[in-house]
This record gives sequence, structure tokens and C-alpha cells, in this order.
Amino acid sequence: MKATAPAAAPVLPVRGRLRPLGLGDVRITGGFWAGRQSVNADASLAHIEHWLEREGWIRNFDLAAGAGDLAAERRGREFSDSEVYKYLEALAWEIGRSDDEQLESRFRAVVARVAAAQEVDGYLNTRFGRPGQAPRWSDLEWGHEIYCVGHLLHAAVARARTRPGADDGLLELARRAADNICDTFGPDGIEGICGHPGIETALVELARVTENHRYLAQAALFVDRRGHGLLSDVEYGREYYQDDTPVRQATVLRGHAVRANYLAAGAVDVAVELKDAGLLDAVRAQWTNAVARRTYVTGGQGARHQDEAFGGDWVLPPDRAYSETCAGVGSVMLAWRLLLADGDPRCADLIERTLFNVVSTSPATDGRGFFYTNTLHRRELGTQPDADRPSPRAAASLRAPWFEVSCCPTNIARTLASLTAYLATADDDGLQLHQYAPGTVRHRRADGRQLCVTIATDYPRDGEIRVRIDGDDDDDQPWALSLRVPGWAAEGATLTVDGETRQVTPGVVTERRAWRPGDEVVLCLPMAPRFTYPDPRIDGVRGCVAVERGPVVFALESVDVPGVETVDELRVDTSEPPRLTDGRVTVRCHRVHPQDHTWPYRTDPAECTPAPDAEFDAVPLVAYHAWANRGPSTMRVWIPRHA
Amino acid sequence: MKATAPAAAPVLPVRGRLRPLGLGDVRITGGFWAGRQSVNADASLAHIEHWLEREGWIRNFDLAAGAGDLAAERRGREFSDSEVYKYLEALAWEIGRSDDEQLESRFRAVVARVAAAQEVDGYLNTRFGRPGQAPRWSDLEWGHEIYCVGHLLHAAVARARTRPGADDGLLELARRAADNICDTFGPDGIEGICGHPGIETALVELARVTENHRYLAQAALFVDRRGHGLLSDVEYGREYYQDDTPVRQATVLRGHAVRANYLAAGAVDVAVELKDAGLLDAVRAQWTNAVARRTYVTGGQGARHQDEAFGGDWVLPPDRAYSETCAGVGSVMLAWRLLLADGDPRCADLIERTLFNVVSTSPATDGRGFFYTNTLHRRELGTQPDADRPSPRAAASLRAPWFEVSCCPTNIARTLASLTAYLATADDDGLQLHQYAPGTVRHRRADGRQLCVTIATDYPRDGEIRVRIDGDDDDDQPWALSLRVPGWAAEGATLTVDGETRQVTPGVVTERRAWRPGDEVVLCLPMAPRFTYPDPRIDGVRGCVAVERGPVVFALESVDVPGVETVDELRVDTSEPPRLTDGRVTVRCHRVHPQDHTWPYRTDPAECTPAPDAEFDAVPLVAYHAWANRGPSTMRVWIPRHA
Repeated sequence: MKATAPAAAPVLPVRGRLRPLGLGDVRITGGFWAGRQSVNADASLAHIEHWLEREGWIRNFDLAAGAGDLAAERRGREFSDSEVYKYLEALAWEIGRSDDEQLESRFRAVVARVAAAQEVDGYLNTRFGRPGQAPRWSDLEWGHEIYCVGHLLHAAVARARTRPGADDGLLELARRAADNICDTFGPDGIEGICGHPGIETALVELARVTENHRYLAQAALFVDRRGHGLLSDVEYGREYYQDDTPVRQATVLRGHAVRANYLAAGAVDVAVELKDAGLLDAVRAQWTNAVARRTYVTGGQGARHQDEAFGGDWVLPPDRAYSETCAGVGSVMLAWRLLLADGDPRCADLIERTLFNVVSTSPATDGRGFFYTNTLHRRELGTQPDADRPSPRAAASLRAPWFEVSCCPTNIARTLASLTAYLATADDDGLQLHQYAPGTVRHRRADGRQLCVTIATDYPRDGEIRVRIDGDDDDDQPWALSLRVPGWAAEGATLTVDGETRQVTPGVVTERRAWRPGDEVVLCLPMAPRFTYPDPRIDGVRGCVAVERGPVVFALESVDVPGVETVDELRVDTSEPPRLTDGRVTVRCHRVHPQDHTWPYRTDPAECTPAPDAEFDAVPLVAYHAWANRGPSTMRVWIPRHA
Repeated sequence: MKATAPAAAPVLPVRGRLRPLGLGDVRITGGFWAGRQSVNADASLAHIEHWLEREGWIRNFDLAAGAGDLAAERRGREFSDSEVYKYLEALAWEIGRSDDEQLESRFRAVVARVAAAQEVDGYLNTRFGRPGQAPRWSDLEWGHEIYCVGHLLHAAVARARTRPGADDGLLELARRAADNICDTFGPDGIEGICGHPGIETALVELARVTENHRYLAQAALFVDRRGHGLLSDVEYGREYYQDDTPVRQATVLRGHAVRANYLAAGAVDVAVELKDAGLLDAVRAQWTNAVARRTYVTGGQGARHQDEAFGGDWVLPPDRAYSETCAGVGSVMLAWRLLLADGDPRCADLIERTLFNVVSTSPATDGRGFFYTNTLHRRELGTQPDADRPSPRAAASLRAPWFEVSCCPTNIARTLASLTAYLATADDDGLQLHQYAPGTVRHRRADGRQLCVTIATDYPRDGEIRVRIDGDDDDDQPWALSLRVPGWAAEGATLTVDGETRQVTPGVVTERRAWRPGDEVVLCLPMAPRFTYPDPRIDGVRGCVAVERGPVVFALESVDVPGVETVDELRVDTSEPPRLTDGRVTVRCHRVHPQDHTWPYRTDPAECTPAPDAEFDAVPLVAYHAWANRGPSTMRVWIPRHA
């Protein structure tokens, strides 16, 4: 790996089963994700900067640099600095992807304002430590100081990998902030951790960029310290910030879902760097259990509004699903690291599911509104959030332009801008494609040979993925091309190579050949819409089915069913499979009108099983990620079955 | 009503369909409630005082009176004063019921300490207004200052009605505190309301005790002011404290469930006093809708942990049921006021259900532990809360001795001590029995005639309620004896009068006769255990049934089913009705072991419908109020049906 330039990618482990390919190696040239990336670049980034300015979160840095009375005038919550850093990270990736001059100048302008606020010893936070403010590190539980530095580091890492040697000063600024963290919380410093993990991945990545082992050691120390009750207890219990059980001993992801995923991702990074198999095993087991028992069908995580947290096993209520957008981002971060470490295609399965059904559900089609939480069932019509001021974070309403706690918009922006780096990997033997989008993948191996492929597909609208070997390299050396057959493609997937078609099953299918330019591999995934049944232990959706097509979860939305007051009146007839009608996924439904009573619990079961009063042969469903774009509606992913 | 002494009862409206009978009129002499009352008197009251002292919540008054540095040493949350007042109220009722000398001296001692803290203008609160503290009324949203005064007034009202003319000074203290509220928040004062309703019922009752209309007018003003956004917005929305919609315009109980019930109860009081039919209609409609769509089968209210609030219609998840004990108390307060106003037996139905399944579920059998929330489903074994320090309020664990927010123990104590006043009423024509317990009811009418009955029953263990006419009054004037036939007794209830038995149906059955001493009326209620089915719109319990017997909800508890890891493995066979086996309610169950998968959503429905691997002919259930008294267990009220 040393033979080639570091990839422009968020995660670059020194070892592991697979090696990431970056923005320079992979291009998305069309389709679903190209559309999302261009809305992100063209609309969301400017929208975000507008709100960051409007809410004063960038100006806080100016105040800290002396432009005013910081203590009196500072605006925003404890973690508002991190939104500016996540915006910078998004810009850095987008500039790396598109070379946009205007974005470059915006990036430099914001970096300069941030830099001006850094204190002489490297400390950087606009909320603590200056006259009239609470002292530095005086509130590790809720202050988010270390967490904010983590996002600063990620921005600097993104910049260093997309514009190595840039003269904007961000990397140096980040180094000094990281040194301040290490000076303060190192082995001889405060024995503390941050109430919100996030610094761990950042320090490891900065160590990888700078080749400074100190940052890695500090990340390892933070991982090891957690779980010993260093943080004070809170009403939700210390599991809220994963300070209940040491990382090595925990058996499942728990507590605040964003915190849990960020911490686990950092623990994987540390484990991989330090060859700590025990730590990696522990996190892998936590992830496996969380996926098997604590994850929504959308890939969403977090079942509790109270503490934005995982519920217990099987506690997955659709109507009170929290499924925070940022938890989806964190879940992708964790699964990607495990995929690189292990090569386990189930990790890529979860990434695909989460990208299509959480990450792409949050932003509005115009890129200027976001879901903070991603409910799977809305009973009442949402109301249009105030376009002119930040919304509460978990209001049951339509996508909002900004939130009082506005972590999600910037998290979406940095994820979409760097998405290209999550599609393909390489190993010594060849290329692996994990997510499918039209585009190109090229990789120069350590031996100098360049492997290039072009992917043509309309996935996920269509199941055909056509991979063509490119280039003028007609070396006779064989190499391996691996494709992921998603877990949902249990039956009917085929692979065609050199005119021969065979059935393939979920997992990784590898073709190792002396490929010639023009050779084609065609993966055909079964795209018939299908019913999906829940594990019987998930009490919240007993007697219901969901509908999926490929990796996309569908939903019943009231705007598609004229004459129905609410989608809750519909019962799906599972005796007929869902089908495609005029290009839309449809199901057969019955309508019921439950009887109103003064007391909703009855001795006579007949009173609770209303007979249908109408039938709908083909009720169209909407891709879950596209719902709530046509005005107020009611919606459900899990539809009760007609008995 | 003026002809007789005021009843020793918490609520004494000047008009309304029914008139309450108090502690002097009604005696409970045995059975379920006598047991609860004696545990409350013998154990809970001392337990409460112990914790109030231990946590320093009574000492706060000493500090305020000058015994120390209040600002520096005060302990407890904003509302801790109210716990002392609720304890005083409980003592007052208990002294009125039992004439206990020791309780009387404890009562006087605590009153003296409270009195010493009152400021010269009547203001009384240990958290605000003194040197080093936040100014008075500086945090109406969360400060609970007015709310605390409300509980002080209720304590004084209880005392005034049980010991009229007592020289302890509490009534005068309360008057001065109430005058301070009226001076401060009257028509010419601050246009404000308290973030937590509760003052409204208190002011009305104090007006009834003192015949001072000023307090009633202030209560009416508080009711009218609410719903106009006088309180600042909060993340949960202003519906959290019912400041979203004026009381007259709201159509359903919403927001924080305790606040909602307290406010609605106060609005009924105001409406009744001021003959405000529109206001009464509005609250009645809110109650009707809340009962029909937002109430658990236990009578519990509040489906959200986040804001301790009502969920939307049909949002009643059993596993995340909040069903706060205090919301149950508030619901009894509201339903009782509506019953007095309207005579609607559905109000008494809800009271019965809530008393047997919420109010009696909270306290441990020894009276020294309490549930703060009352979940309907526990998936994981609870852990024994710390006996030595206050627990978080909504921890999923066993009953705890005390809470950081410890509103529930004192609320239970005052409710049980005054319970006798909720059993029977009178009107010009006779007596009405609403709740059944062995004991006596006597009432001297305005015309001087005394009506006396003795109730003999083992209800709810047995369905026979035997009412004997007592006394030596052989006036030939007929009078009416009314009995409530509970809503759950849809079939099979009979009434026997003078040897003649007839079928009766839910509602009020009235016998008007020239009763003679020794005459008997026997109500027989059908006590066969029964399955109860949920409205199909309650998504959280689709495909499940509950089991009830009489007014008591039953539950499946793991300690009763050896060989089963968790109650979630059981499926109830509804083809056989529940029955009594050796005195216990039992059901036939199948055991299933769902298959573990790495992803819990499957295309093949067979993978989600495991076949039973064992059958249990008679699984014993436990009365829900008695669960969690035999060590850690899993439990469910709603049991999935075997298909």
C-alpha cells in the first residue's frame, strides 16, 4: 500500500482484509447517487452555510477571535462548533470530488475564521474557557469539547487526503488541537473521556495522515477508559454514553445510538491499528447483535425518543422509531470499518440498506430540508415546519430546514460528498465492488498494474449490473473481480461471465481470470417487489408486513390512496405478492373502519376485527426515502395483514 | 347540603348530580382496600417521612426559617416542597380516618416547621426568592412555585375537613399563601400561569372551605389563561404543559399526563362552581376521547417516556408504557369530579380500573417501595433498586424505596388515606354506591332522615355484593339505592331484591322503595376470567389478548412458569377461555422458540412463525397489581395469541 499515494477516503487502515479506494479511484457518473451528490453540492452545502451564518455558529469563532463579547453573544448549543467542522469536512470531500473553485474559496474563508479562534496552546472551542465562560473541561459529560475537536480533525483529514499539501493551514490547526487533547488527557493528564464519543476515529485517522503514533495511543486510551464510570451518572443511566461497561466486555450496541456507533467505529480503528483481536472481536459481536435484534428494517437505529437510544432487544416500535439520521451515518461508519477489517458482505448489506433508507430519506429532494428522526409510521398529518427558524429535532412533521440541534444536515452533507469512497475496495488479488452505481473504478496495484472497470447499471431501479473490464492492459496475469450478492437476493440472482450464466447466492461472488479489455461480467439481481416478515419477537409490528424491492424499503403513503382518511385503515392482502403496476410497486389492500367505542378493549373479538368495506386492487407504494415530499400525509412501512 | 356539616372529603362541589360522602359517612371495614389502607397507615407514612428527612426536603423549611444557608444547603428538585405538603395531606386524611395520636403529633411537628418558613407576605417556597436564590416567579415554566402552593392548600383543606377548627395554624398559613398567589397573579398582577397545573383544584377547594370567592376567581383566571402561549415554548411543544390550546377549545387530553389530568380536574371544579356549561362540556369531551383512545387497559395514562406524556390516539405501546402512578392518581381525581357533576357511571368504571390496576400496583406489599411508571411488558429481568438511595424515576426495575423525583409515593399515600371518600355519594333521593368494599355508608339527609347501609362482600375476589339496609328508621318514605354495574360486566350480572332476581346490564341500577331495616339488595357480578381484545388501531398490541377478571387486569409473570426463559416465549390459546384453577386464573399456552437470524426480517413467513415445542395446559397468571413482588421477573399483560 505504501507504493501508491494514500487514497482520498475517510478511512485508511494500515491493514485489514480490504483496502479502500478513494475519490480519485472511483467515479459515480449517473443514477441514484449521482443525483443525490449533485443536489448536495448544488443546494445543501450553500443551505448549510446560510444557516450556520444565520444562527451565528460561524460567527462564534469570530467572537472568540476578539470580534465581540464571546460570553455574552455566543449562540447555539455546546456542540455548534462541530457543525462548522462537519461543513468543512463536507466541503473538503466535495472539492476533492468536483474541483469546484467557488467551494474552495468558501472553504478557505471558513477555515481562516476558525483558525483565528484557536488559542496559543492549541485549545479550540467557542463555548468554554474564555472570560465569562465555564472553564475548559468543566463539563465532560455534556460539554462536547473533545467531541468537537474530533470533527475538526475529520475535516482536516478529509482536506489532507483530497488536497495534500494545501496551504490553508487546516491540518496544522488540527494537529495543534489534537496535541492539546493529548497533552490534557494523556496518560499523565486528566483521566477523563468525553460524554460524546467521536474523537477516537478522528485521532486514529489523524495518526494515519501524520504518521504520529501519539494520536493513536490517545485514541486507544479513550477507548480503554470508557465503561468505568468516569462520567457522572445520568437519569438514563451511564449506558447512555457507553460508560456502563468497558468496550471489550459489552455484548451489544446500547445507549445513545450515535454515540454507540461512533465509539464502536473508533474501537475498530484502534483494534486494527494495534492488532488488538480481542477488541475487534468484541465490537464485531456488538454489531452482530445490534443488527440482529436492534435495527429497523430500514437500517435505522435508535428506538427511544427519550435518550435517542437503542431500545432493548426486539424493541422496535415503528411509530416511535427514532432512527436518527446521524445514527444511520454512524452505522455506515461502523459497518464500513468492519467490512474493511473482515470483508464480511453483511456489513456492505447493512451499508446499502442504510444508505437507501436512512441517509437518502433525510434530505428533501431539493436538498434544503432534512429529517432528524426517521419514523416508520406516521398516524397524523405532519405540519410544515417553520421555514424561517430552527425546528425542534424530533418533531413529528415534515422535513425541516434546520434544527436547534442540527447535527443531521452536516452529517448528511459530509456522507454524500464522500460516498464515492464507500463503493469499492482492493486487495492484493483484485477489486471488490460493494455498492452498485454507474461509474468507473480504477486501481493501481503495488506491482504497478492498473485494474479498471466500468459499471453500467440503473440500479436500484433495475437489477442488471454490467461490469466491463477497461484499459489497454492485456497482461496475462489473472486477477479477481468480486461482486457482492446482497442478502436480500436470496433467490434468483445470476452472474453471467463470458456468455455463461449461473445462479449465485448472497455473499461475495468472485471471478478470477486473466481479464481482457472488453470482458464483461453481468450480475442480475431479482427485482420483483417482495413482502418482508418481522421476527416474531418484534412486538411492535406483529401481524404486519413490509414491502421491499431490491435494497429499497417501500411505504404506504396516504397521498397515494384517494378516499382513505388514513393509511391505518388499510390491510394488505398477502395472498397476492406485491407487483409492479405502471412502474410502481403496488399491493392489494382491503379497507376497514374500526368501530368507535367509549372503551377500546372488548370482550367480543368480533368487535375488534372489522370486516373490510372496500377493496383496492393495486395500491401504489412509495419508496420510503421519497415519502413526505408531496405535502402532509400519513404513512406506514409496516402494514397490518388482512387476516 | 347546607343543613349538614361539610363532608370530610377532598372534593365538595356546591352543585352537581351527586354529592360526595366523606370519611365520617363511609367506613371500609375489611377486604382489599382496608388492607391497602392499613399498610399505608402503618408503613408507608413513616417510610415517607423517613425519606423526606433523609433527603433534606423537610429541613429545607428549617433552612428557610433561618437554621442555615438556604441557598447553599437546600436539597432536592424544584418541587420538593410539594412532597412535604402531600405528606401532610396524607397524614390529615389518615388522622381523620383513624384518629391516630402519633400521626397527629407528627402532623403538627411538620406543620410547625413549614409555618416557620413562610414569609411575611404569605409567600412560601424554599427554592426561590431568598438571598442567593433565583427571584420569585423567575421560572414559571419549570419552577413549580404555584404548583407547590396548590399542594399546600390541598393539605390545609384536608385538615380543615377532618379537623375543623384545629389550632395547628395550617389553614391560616394556606390562606396567606393563597392570598399571595392572588395578589401576585390576579387580574392586575402578573399575567402568568404555572408550568405544572394543580393550583386550580386547590384554589377552588380552598374557596369552598373558606367561602372566599377570590380563590375561585383566581382558579378560573388560571384556567382561562392557559393555552395562549404565556409559557415559553419547549422542545416537546407547548402541549407538554397544555399551553398550546385554550381549555375550552381542546378536544382531548394531551401532553404531560399528570399536568393534563390536574388541569382538567381544576377546570371541572371551576365549571361546576361558575355554572360554566361550555367549559364542563369541553373537559368532558377531552376525557371521553382520552379514555376511548389514549388509555391503557389498566387505566394507566401516558405512553411516552420522553415527556411523560400522552401519545397520539392509539399510541399505547405496552413495553414503553409510562403510565405514571401520579397520572393514575390524577385520572381518578378528574373522573371523580366528572362523576359528581354528571353521575356518569363510566367515570366510576375508570376509577375502579385505575384504582385496582395503577394505584394499587405502585406500592409494594410492604408499603415501602413504589413503581413510578407502570409498564405493561417487561422483557428483561428487573434489577433490585438501591435500597439506600433514590432511584431514577423511570428505571425499568423493581419497586424502589424513593426517587430523585419522588412525586408518586406521597400521591399514593394521600389517595389511599382518602380513598373512603370515593366510594359512595348521595343525592336528594338516596344513596349511590360506586365502588364496592365491605363497610358501611350512612348519610343524614337535609330533611334529617338518616340513610344507612352495610355492604358485605369479598369483592373483587368474589362477585357477590350484599347491601343491607340498617338503622331503626322505619319511615314509610321511599328512597333510592343505586348500584353501579361495571362496564366489564356486560353479561350475567344479576340483582336480587326481596327474593326476586333479575338480569342487569352495565350502568346504574336503582331500586326505589320504602326500605325497612334488614332489607337486602344483592348484586352478583360475573367473575369468570375473560379474554380482552384490543381495538385494531392499537398497533402496539396487535395479535395479543389480555386477561381480566372483574375489574382486575392479569399478567403473565415468568416466576409462575418454570422452564420458560422469558414470558415472550408463550402464546396463549384463545380457543379455550381462561379459567380458575386452584383459585388462580390460568390460561392454556404454547411455547415457541423463534429462530435466531443475523437479520430479523425475512422473506419466508414460515421463518417468522415458529411452531410450538411445548404446551402448558394451565399457566397461572398474576393480578397485575401484585406482580414483581417475587423477585426479578419478566412480565406481559398483552400476550400474543397462538394463531
